[in-house]
Amino acid sequence: MFAGTQEQSVIGWIGTGVMGRWMCHQLLSGGHAVVVYNRTAEKTRPLLDEGAILARSPKEVAQKCDVVFTMVGFPVDVETCYFGEDGLFSGARPGMVFVDMTTTKPSLAISINEKACELGCDSLDAPVSGGDVGAREATLSIMVGGARKTFEAMRPYFSLMGRSYVLQGGPGAGQQTKMANQIAIAGTMIGVCEAMLYARKAGLDLETMVKTISKGAAGCWTLDNLAPRIIANDYQPGFFIDHFVKDLGIALEEARRMQLALPGLALVNQLYIALQGTGNGRNGTQALVLVLDRLSESDCFPE
Amino acid sequence: MFAGTQEQSVIGWIGTGVMGRWMCHQLLSGGHAVVVYNRTAEKTRPLLDEGAILARSPKEVAQKCDVVFTMVGFPVDVETCYFGEDGLFSGARPGMVFVDMTTTKPSLAISINEKACELGCDSLDAPVSGGDVGAREATLSIMVGGARKTFEAMRPYFSLMGRSYVLQGGPGAGQQTKMANQIAIAGTMIGVCEAMLYARKAGLDLETMVKTISKGAAGCWTLDNLAPRIIANDYQPGFFIDHFVKDLGIALEEARRMQLALPGLALVNQLYIALQGTGNGRNGTQALVLVLDRLSESDCFPE
Repeated sequence: MFAGTQEQSVIGWIGTGVMGRWMCHQLLSGGHAVVVYNRTAEKTRPLLDEGAILARSPKEVAQKCDVVFTMVGFPVDVETCYFGEDGLFSGARPGMVFVDMTTTKPSLAISINEKACELGCDSLDAPVSGGDVGAREATLSIMVGGARKTFEAMRPYFSLMGRSYVLQGGPGAGQQTKMANQIAIAGTMIGVCEAMLYARKAGLDLETMVKTISKGAAGCWTLDNLAPRIIANDYQPGFFIDHFVKDLGIALEEARRMQLALPGLALVNQLYIALQGTGNGRNGTQALVLVLDRLSESDCFPE
Repeated sequence: MFAGTQEQSVIGWIGTGVMGRWMCHQLLSGGHAVVVYNRTAEKTRPLLDEGAILARSPKEVAQKCDVVFTMVGFPVDVETCYFGEDGLFSGARPGMVFVDMTTTKPSLAISINEKACELGCDSLDAPVSGGDVGAREATLSIMVGGARKTFEAMRPYFSLMGRSYVLQGGPGAGQQTKMANQIAIAGTMIGVCEAMLYARKAGLDLETMVKTISKGAAGCWTLDNLAPRIIANDYQPGFFIDHFVKDLGIALEEARRMQLALPGLALVNQLYIALQGTGNGRNGTQALVLVLDRLSESDCFPE
């Protein structure tokens, strides 16, 4: 077996996209032996160059490892990865730990945990915030759901990937916290974008306005970080609209399951869907101002 | 005439409510001679005890003063105060300066400025944020619209009342900036309240959740300052819903005038109107969570 800094566990990593690639890199840099799998195998290349070993299926990852992290795309990808024919559970042995770091459905996190427990394993849901910059700089915030002892056992890995990792509750609580995070962001985003649109239409100097209001009760991360991009007509993605629509869809589905109406979230979701429909899915979330602008053909923010 | 620290001007102050009382106090403390008027005369008592002189009408204030500040209630009160039979303009002399610090309609600020100029006077619109605490501690943020030279001339007074005072543009620009501020707050408020409702329904520990998400892209003043009150079932007013509904109504009216649809703002406004209709007008703006809770009868937040 391989030598790791903390213990002799072999780590599995599934999903080496824009986030997963860097998170896996942090584990390798921390001295851990890692077996990687990605649907598009060539995306594992930089990690193989760092010493990771390639597996040909999630099943093979499970067979070769003690702890497996997953960071894939949509809930359906997570489901296939765990429950599919060559999925993780088909290769699981008792005592293993599965940690899904994908942002996915809280109910799916619970299903994964139930199945894991059935197989004598355990699982955590551990979605993150902080984006690709946070992944690269190991400054992610990790929101964890599951058993405390399993959370404690995973600390050495979380500490390599993130600046903050907090147990939010039992299985699914990590995903629920991430959903609460996205719901709050949806609100701040429409507030800031409508304020910017109003202000430009009213002829204000946006920089002066933003600087003034950001110091008071309107202050928020979005105003500090995304308003300047809007002023500069910069819609490059910090966070893709396509990914945000995925997350908001999960939040709305989960809220519906809980029989909870969230009218603000529903409205913002509709506006982002309109942005996807007009070719803005690969733009950043601050492009919300464009659809608001388009509603009234106010031509305040050129696309 | 009286002796002031900066110059010999006699200052007029109209409106001695929860905000105006303290703002006027700061001018008196700064050594200025002040003539006060308030519709309900007994509310001027603490200021008279500090040496202010009582006037019986806005007209009399204008006749006795060189610079007049107004801090009254609704746009109609501002209109009466300036344009009414015994209003300020009926007592104005050339060279006077009028500063309306009430949050009111940008279009009204422009009308006041036009009339002031016609009379050989000048005016500024200078609404504030920071609430009664900011008024008491002289830490208000003052958003100013008008001519630069008049703004410069008023600096000595603004500096006694606020920590920040910024010229945002010509007449009305102060009010427009305040509206942009309130629009942004409407968004952050619904985002935070829906996140709190979702999280409680999902069974999360709200304190842990808020602490976690407030450090990232969901971070905002509302989450830092009002989420803890919601957790404590504390709906005491930092800012009255009745006043917020006034402000949102002005913003929506102004947006309509500019032919600008603001769907997020319109939604939040409707929810606050529902709160007024259920006896919550004198609660603080964080009570938005109560109407969201009531929508689905989710009983997450007891009233």
